[in-house]
Amino acid sequence: MSAFISKRSRKAGLPPGTLVHIGERKADSTRYMMVRYNEVLLEEKQIPSPEEFFQVQEEGVTTWIHVSGIHDVQSIRHFGEILHLHPLTLEDIVNTEQRVKMEVYEDYTFVVLKRIEWADTKGQIEVEQVSLIFKPGLIISFEERSGDLFYHLRDRMRHPGSKIRKGGSDYLAYALMDSVVDHYFFCLEQIGEQIENLQERLLQDAGSTILEEIHRAKRETIYLRRAIWPLREVVNSILRGETAFITSGTLVYFRDVYDHTVQAIDTLEIHREMLGSMMDIYLSSVSNRLNEVMKILTIIATIFIPLTFIAGVYGMNFRHMPELEWQWGYPGILLIMFCIAVIMLIYFRKKKWLE
Amino acid sequence: MSAFISKRSRKAGLPPGTLVHIGERKADSTRYMMVRYNEVLLEEKQIPSPEEFFQVQEEGVTTWIHVSGIHDVQSIRHFGEILHLHPLTLEDIVNTEQRVKMEVYEDYTFVVLKRIEWADTKGQIEVEQVSLIFKPGLIISFEERSGDLFYHLRDRMRHPGSKIRKGGSDYLAYALMDSVVDHYFFCLEQIGEQIENLQERLLQDAGSTILEEIHRAKRETIYLRRAIWPLREVVNSILRGETAFITSGTLVYFRDVYDHTVQAIDTLEIHREMLGSMMDIYLSSVSNRLNEVMKILTIIATIFIPLTFIAGVYGMNFRHMPELEWQWGYPGILLIMFCIAVIMLIYFRKKKWLE
Amino acid sequence: MSAFISKRSRKAGLPPGTLVHIGERKADSTRYMMVRYNEVLLEEKQIPSPEEFFQVQEEGVTTWIHVSGIHDVQSIRHFGEILHLHPLTLEDIVNTEQRVKMEVYEDYTFVVLKRIEWADTKGQIEVEQVSLIFKPGLIISFEERSGDLFYHLRDRMRHPGSKIRKGGSDYLAYALMDSVVDHYFFCLEQIGEQIENLQERLLQDAGSTILEEIHRAKRETIYLRRAIWPLREVVNSILRGETAFITSGTLVYFRDVYDHTVQAIDTLEIHREMLGSMMDIYLSSVSNRLNEVMKILTIIATIFIPLTFIAGVYGMNFRHMPELEWQWGYPGILLIMFCIAVIMLIYFRKKKWLE
Amino acid sequence: MSAFISKRSRKAGLPPGTLVHIGERKADSTRYMMVRYNEVLLEEKQIPSPEEFFQVQEEGVTTWIHVSGIHDVQSIRHFGEILHLHPLTLEDIVNTEQRVKMEVYEDYTFVVLKRIEWADTKGQIEVEQVSLIFKPGLIISFEERSGDLFYHLRDRMRHPGSKIRKGGSDYLAYALMDSVVDHYFFCLEQIGEQIENLQERLLQDAGSTILEEIHRAKRETIYLRRAIWPLREVVNSILRGETAFITSGTLVYFRDVYDHTVQAIDTLEIHREMLGSMMDIYLSSVSNRLNEVMKILTIIATIFIPLTFIAGVYGMNFRHMPELEWQWGYPGILLIMFCIAVIMLIYFRKKKWLE
Amino acid sequence: MSAFISKRSRKAGLPPGTLVHIGERKADSTRYMMVRYNEVLLEEKQIPSPEEFFQVQEEGVTTWIHVSGIHDVQSIRHFGEILHLHPLTLEDIVNTEQRVKMEVYEDYTFVVLKRIEWADTKGQIEVEQVSLIFKPGLIISFEERSGDLFYHLRDRMRHPGSKIRKGGSDYLAYALMDSVVDHYFFCLEQIGEQIENLQERLLQDAGSTILEEIHRAKRETIYLRRAIWPLREVVNSILRGETAFITSGTLVYFRDVYDHTVQAIDTLEIHREMLGSMMDIYLSSVSNRLNEVMKILTIIATIFIPLTFIAGVYGMNFRHMPELEWQWGYPGILLIMFCIAVIMLIYFRKKKWLE
Repeated sequence: MSAFISKRSRKAGLPPGTLVHIGERKADSTRYMMVRYNEVLLEEKQIPSPEEFFQVQEEGVTTWIHVSGIHDVQSIRHFGEILHLHPLTLEDIVNTEQRVKMEVYEDYTFVVLKRIEWADTKGQIEVEQVSLIFKPGLIISFEERSGDLFYHLRDRMRHPGSKIRKGGSDYLAYALMDSVVDHYFFCLEQIGEQIENLQERLLQDAGSTILEEIHRAKRETIYLRRAIWPLREVVNSILRGETAFITSGTLVYFRDVYDHTVQAIDTLEIHREMLGSMMDIYLSSVSNRLNEVMKILTIIATIFIPLTFIAGVYGMNFRHMPELEWQWGYPGILLIMFCIAVIMLIYFRKKKWLE
Repeated sequence: MSAFISKRSRKAGLPPGTLVHIGERKADSTRYMMVRYNEVLLEEKQIPSPEEFFQVQEEGVTTWIHVSGIHDVQSIRHFGEILHLHPLTLEDIVNTEQRVKMEVYEDYTFVVLKRIEWADTKGQIEVEQVSLIFKPGLIISFEERSGDLFYHLRDRMRHPGSKIRKGGSDYLAYALMDSVVDHYFFCLEQIGEQIENLQERLLQDAGSTILEEIHRAKRETIYLRRAIWPLREVVNSILRGETAFITSGTLVYFRDVYDHTVQAIDTLEIHREMLGSMMDIYLSSVSNRLNEVMKILTIIATIFIPLTFIAGVYGMNFRHMPELEWQWGYPGILLIMFCIAVIMLIYFRKKKWLE
Repeated sequence: MSAFISKRSRKAGLPPGTLVHIGERKADSTRYMMVRYNEVLLEEKQIPSPEEFFQVQEEGVTTWIHVSGIHDVQSIRHFGEILHLHPLTLEDIVNTEQRVKMEVYEDYTFVVLKRIEWADTKGQIEVEQVSLIFKPGLIISFEERSGDLFYHLRDRMRHPGSKIRKGGSDYLAYALMDSVVDHYFFCLEQIGEQIENLQERLLQDAGSTILEEIHRAKRETIYLRRAIWPLREVVNSILRGETAFITSGTLVYFRDVYDHTVQAIDTLEIHREMLGSMMDIYLSSVSNRLNEVMKILTIIATIFIPLTFIAGVYGMNFRHMPELEWQWGYPGILLIMFCIAVIMLIYFRKKKWLE
Repeated sequence: MSAFISKRSRKAGLPPGTLVHIGERKADSTRYMMVRYNEVLLEEKQIPSPEEFFQVQEEGVTTWIHVSGIHDVQSIRHFGEILHLHPLTLEDIVNTEQRVKMEVYEDYTFVVLKRIEWADTKGQIEVEQVSLIFKPGLIISFEERSGDLFYHLRDRMRHPGSKIRKGGSDYLAYALMDSVVDHYFFCLEQIGEQIENLQERLLQDAGSTILEEIHRAKRETIYLRRAIWPLREVVNSILRGETAFITSGTLVYFRDVYDHTVQAIDTLEIHREMLGSMMDIYLSSVSNRLNEVMKILTIIATIFIPLTFIAGVYGMNFRHMPELEWQWGYPGILLIMFCIAVIMLIYFRKKKWLE
Repeated sequence: MSAFISKRSRKAGLPPGTLVHIGERKADSTRYMMVRYNEVLLEEKQIPSPEEFFQVQEEGVTTWIHVSGIHDVQSIRHFGEILHLHPLTLEDIVNTEQRVKMEVYEDYTFVVLKRIEWADTKGQIEVEQVSLIFKPGLIISFEERSGDLFYHLRDRMRHPGSKIRKGGSDYLAYALMDSVVDHYFFCLEQIGEQIENLQERLLQDAGSTILEEIHRAKRETIYLRRAIWPLREVVNSILRGETAFITSGTLVYFRDVYDHTVQAIDTLEIHREMLGSMMDIYLSSVSNRLNEVMKILTIIATIFIPLTFIAGVYGMNFRHMPELEWQWGYPGILLIMFCIAVIMLIYFRKKKWLE
């Protein structure tokens, strides 16, 4: 639940642009990885301080700076000043509870995404904020943790003829976003398998833990929804050309991202619908079991209560009870009791209660 | 359920345009069928390799290439290169979990459709992806399986005066889409009959399997929804003239396709509403039966429990119980018991429990 | 239910424009009624074959042809050819499962409506398709059955000074549509009365047939919805001037039709809301009755079960049971039992179970 | 309920513009009240026949005619002819089941409103139709009943310096509409109080009448909704300048009316939401009570049924039952019974059933 | 609840612009605080009467007047006249049940906001209306109570180099709105914690008070919704440039406010969804407990009722009951009873009722 409780309140009353890290502290120090590349050149290095960046600016070379670990507000502010980023942009980068959005500033475009990962150990999803800044010739990506989120892109860059090397900075922007969107499908598949699994168990026996699990899966779809739905709008804005930064040759790739986003939304909504209808089935199976229990109680009680009454009658101690003296009184009354039981059973069979 | 779990994840991390077949392997080899026709000419032949296509290009002749079986990624890539298709188009063709969409490229229009077939043997629907590429004078259709999906169109072509022979490639585009849409009605009718059938059984006796069947029918409508809803947008785009490929004379036919799509959507939504309201009736009939069971238990118990108590009282072994000595004690107490039972029954009748 | 199952599938695979009558066969032969009128002239005649129509075309005279019975596909095709109607128009006319729509062709406007009639004998609604073709100076109306749907309009025409005689063909178009819309109110009132009736019975006793009747009324609103909702869009298109055929003087009358359509939609939605809330009340009244039954069972059982136990104790045959020998043992134990029963009743009264 | 059943059907088949009074007959005769005013002049008089109106037309004087009682179709038609009102306008005025709307004719604007009044005697709302016709210099208001709906406006006019005297006819139009909207708040407050009242009772005890009252309150919100929702669109049309009749100085007042309408809609929707959630609470409190009843039954039954069985065992008449002869048999068995009861109670306490 | 009942009705019938204070009387007197500042100057003073304001107007100095306590209608009217505010604006300021909105007048912009505070003592939210008037160089803020709502902004102003000192009046407008929006997060977090808390308790034991608490939390989200949803539209209007008052440099800050508003809406909707799904869980846990109770009753009753019957049979007083004379009759019948009980238990275990 706690992920739903925004901790923004600790910022209330501060002037805008005050950098306060909001969120769990997921990394200890901020690390800067710089990649410079074009079709012929590739240079990767980890640099200790952000100052080094601008000694190497060159025409025709795309620079990609990946910042991992954003809790060190001091360092981020310094970084932002060097790059002339708006204070509100920096504020959004360190606030890990930002919503997914795109903002077009005069000289750069700022995108906030949510990367979603399936944490196998916990069996649930984890959300990590990824912020991207696009400038012609320069891409900056921010990762909440101290990991190396986009290592596979660097891998691809190492192949000299690869598309990513030929494409400019806008193609890299696409590659970063595409990488985030691709991970949604992992999570959607995991949830899909959970649902399939729940569905099978639901038809066998509806234990009380199933309800909790349905509820948990539902909450995970809420997380995902929050990450994926606004992304569609973001990609759509790019397609409408709201940022002048993307060249028309790369637009077709963003159309592909849009496509994947819509597909993820579709799958998500189907999951949600499935979960909703499983809830219905769960509730009705609870009712059905109650019915079954009641039927057994009713069968037993309605058969034996009248018989017990008859036995009670002949257990009375009246002096003058002629039946008690009869030779065949006892077997006779046993026979009558047997007949009553049989009639009852026939009635229940007619009512289809014995199936 | 598995159809809802996208298997896209196996592509995550790969560069865009990497061809990976996603989906069940439904065919062993890729087959190419080429039809060339105009009002006077008709030539059909099955060709072993895609190279042959372009030796026969001619003005005034419409060429239709039908590719069946798309799992052979090698062959599809080769094919795509010959025809100068964008790598993302090829990626979408071999990914059978694409959503329904239309994409306009510079020199061709790409449409993804879902063909839905009612598999009688399984009693449920099956989804197959159909991709279409429209170029002036050339139509290419891709079928997931190795069947011959559009044989009836070739049949029609064999009649020299037929409309399909007179119409150009855009009329063929219409004919292909119309054929896919027409099949939706088959499935909708099958589901409609299922619903009708369920509805009758629901009013007779609400066995526990009905719930599962309602649930299954609901899931089938989800499949259909996914196939049909986005199609409306696709056809609408064509009607708005987003692809320059369609001549105005053929537009009226696409309006017809639009119409059928909307009609299919309407029918589908009515099916969904029906299923929802059947769920309600099912749940309430479960409650009703519980009520009935409880009433019988209550009638039996409330009549006999007091009587049994009276019998119990006169079964006590106190030395001084004057009633036991009375001459008419036993018949008297039987009479009292009878009166109590009758009063109870009158009360229940008043409460309308005995109906 | 069957009305929801489209029978369009029997057309799948046929080329477009192939005339296949879809729907129940409601008439045996196609009859043609021709009315020619202007302010001074009125000529009505039934004609055996459609050829006669065009021998009498005249400036300043409005011709209205009413075709009743559309199953005779041969005759309709012939008719269409004479009038140069598009094959798709003819296809829609004979397919009685068309949705409500308007289509503007180059030289005529085509409107499909659903006329809804309350069949008193069956106590439910019946849907009949009415197609209209508007051309300047010529109105053609198609009726599914062999009835005489618009006889009241001919009646009005017989009054020489009537508005319908003065207005041209566009006024007649209005009069035809208005006549169809007016009938919706009949059905809405019938359903309204059904609802009122159900509502009264619901508060008295919730028999199990009420659920079925609510369900049936709900289905009827689905029929009506399908007929009325798209009509709003149709009339709106006319008001927006999508068809050049309507003169501005007649537009105000179409605004009136629009108004009635919206009013019908409003009423329909209120009916639907009412039915939904009646369903809730029904379900809760079922729960309430279960509650009442359980309370009676509980009262009887909890009073007598302990008393029966006490009686059972003194019915035991132990040799040494001193109470049995006491002079006042029996009346004493009766008194105790009585006190227990009274205490129980007081407890139940406090719980408000005895009200 | 009957207010929801339109009685429009009695008009079906009649030509448009035929005046038929639809609705309850709420007045016996039609009365005409004429007010002529400007900043210096004020003249009020009741006039017997509509002819008198036009003898007094004057530049710079606003004329307000209030017509109360609209059932006298003859008189209304006469009135309409004098003022050159369109027959469809007159038709709408006498049809008291019109929906709320605005229609702009060439030389006047026609508005239909619903005035809602809280009938204290019945404890429910009453709907009355108010029609307004705006012409430059002339305002005509129609009231369904023979009351004097806008007497407070005439009161205000009697103050020579009042805004209403200074403002022209468009200000009067505003004042009339504002007066109608203001009354919605009365009703909303009454319903709000009903809801508050119901809510308190709901938490105390959920008697069966509460359901009916919730249902009734819900129906009243449906009435209100029908009156208020379309009004927003009407006022919005005025603000968009669809009627040229309003001067820009008065527009700010209409913006105020718009504001009030939106506020009324907000309040109404909150009421509806409240009622919906009260329904949920009601249903769950019914379930809770069933639970409580069942728990008591279960506690009593599960304690005494085993004890009764033990007593039954020692009430058997076998010759050889050694326990019966034991000195301490009877107190021993009583002790055992006591222990069983105590164990049961401890178990129930653990299950938290005794709280 | 009472906050939902508008008290506007006490104004019905009064002419527009009549100032009537609507709402609780939250302050005794109206106080005026004036702050004049620019980059070099800062002057704060509390002034007794509004006349003093305009003696100090100066180019390049921003004046901020904060009015706290709005119930003194006399004083507010006087104030409004001095500043040439429209009577309707004043009416909205003193009516504390205004909805959130922005209105653009010729020479000023008027914004109504709702400030929401979490009242710790009551454990629920409190709504206070804040009205803002923006004029170039002059900002007026109205607070419902006699507090000092924006003291932190004055604090910030005391730092000479602070952004708020450098920014003009439009930056102050932003700061005031941002301060209001920031407080929403406090409340959302409090409600979030309530929900988390409820959720934990829900899984442990579903006491009957939980329902009330869910209901109360739901009502609080309704309050918040009413405050936050329309704010999005207000800020959007500012971003679209509907008020000419904001300079483009400040617009980016309003985009930030927009962002926060959308984030607040998102969080709110997630809270609502959570509460809805908790309601479902609550209801199903009630059903589950009923099931459990019924199972125990059924187990006890179905085991002992047949045994009691057998005991009853051998408690009958027939003279000829051979079993009673048998040597092993008593232990034999005990053994039979034991076997019956064991068989029952095995059956229940198979049914999984004993888990």
